[in-house]
Amino acid sequence: MRKPNLQIALDSQSLEEALETVREVGDVVDILEVGTVLCLQEGMKPVKAIRALYPEKTILADTKCADAGKTVAKNCKDAGADWMTVICCATIPTMKAANEAIDQLQVELYGDWTFDQAKEWKNIGIEQVVYHQSRDALLSGQTWGEKDLNKIKKLIDMGFKVSVTGGLNLATLELFKGIDVYTFIAGRSIAKADKPREAAKEFKEKIDQIF
Amino acid sequence: MRKPNLQIALDSQSLEEALETVREVGDVVDILEVGTVLCLQEGMKPVKAIRALYPEKTILADTKCADAGKTVAKNCKDAGADWMTVICCATIPTMKAANEAIDQLQVELYGDWTFDQAKEWKNIGIEQVVYHQSRDALLSGQTWGEKDLNKIKKLIDMGFKVSVTGGLNLATLELFKGIDVYTFIAGRSIAKADKPREAAKEFKEKIDQIF
Repeated sequence: MRKPNLQIALDSQSLEEALETVREVGDVVDILEVGTVLCLQEGMKPVKAIRALYPEKTILADTKCADAGKTVAKNCKDAGADWMTVICCATIPTMKAANEAIDQLQVELYGDWTFDQAKEWKNIGIEQVVYHQSRDALLSGQTWGEKDLNKIKKLIDMGFKVSVTGGLNLATLELFKGIDVYTFIAGRSIAKADKPREAAKEFKEKIDQIF
Repeated sequence: MRKPNLQIALDSQSLEEALETVREVGDVVDILEVGTVLCLQEGMKPVKAIRALYPEKTILADTKCADAGKTVAKNCKDAGADWMTVICCATIPTMKAANEAIDQLQVELYGDWTFDQAKEWKNIGIEQVVYHQSRDALLSGQTWGEKDLNKIKKLIDMGFKVSVTGGLNLATLELFKGIDVYTFIAGRSIAKADKPREAAKEFKEKIDQIF
């Protein structure tokens, strides 16, 4: 089993706030994600800045693109992103256009997506999906369970590289033991820890232990 | 029947390019929309700039928010937006959180939404939806038809204020005669016209004729 990546979601309100986290964890994590909130606040500036700081790291622009796939993907790539996200309810032509304009595209799974749709994504060459527990859904009391894990396994069986995100910490990581997760995405549990660098290292060590 | 609004979608690549269009049509149109591509390129800067230029106009931030509804809505409001959009596959908690933090929220209808979902949106107090023909879908040959118009009528009957967008021009506007559309959204057909100001005025006149 491949060792899962660790991705930091930079869900900061400003470029400067994001850079404070990047300074701490940039060389510990595998993937640096410019979160949707940050994209909407600062545009592509954080992608460009982080690319300037880390010429070799994988950078993900979490645009949750729903339309104009080609334009958004080209803009992300031009800014220095390797990967970007589309939302699962985007049309197939939108996804296809985006997928052709960026190195790798991830479909973000929110709300009522179906495995039939997932087959269509696979058919147009999309390799990655993000299984996402909505922060707002988490806040209203939903959490990880057997139902989630079974869906994740099914997506992996279909051949997707699956990232998982939403309320992950050292304890919840254990739930994924034996599942071939591609990437674990952590946000606040690293960025808002007392010592973000130590927190990121603990995530990496925990992943090493489990996988 | 109320006279429909005219909204310009500023789908520019930069703040400056958007301002060139705003200069021409800002006082002709009813609603100024900072498009998703522009939000993702420049962040909230265009919302702030246009608010500074037009203290009284309705400004829409087309964020197509899918998560973190409260944060995104608060950021849009702080930047000066009156309205913002969420994507139809966002969870109900996300929509609810966003709806409480901005003056008005619009649900963008993409892909496989259902009228049962629309009922839920109504139940949590959302007043507006955007019936959207995806640009990429249009490019691959789909266009407005009876099926679209019937769905729009049904949404209006449910009590929604419905905006329509995607490939609108003076000819396609005629198709909506007799339908209580809340807002027509035009992008390139105004912004990329030889004379954007004249094009916007022609849209307004056509709306006056039809409704």
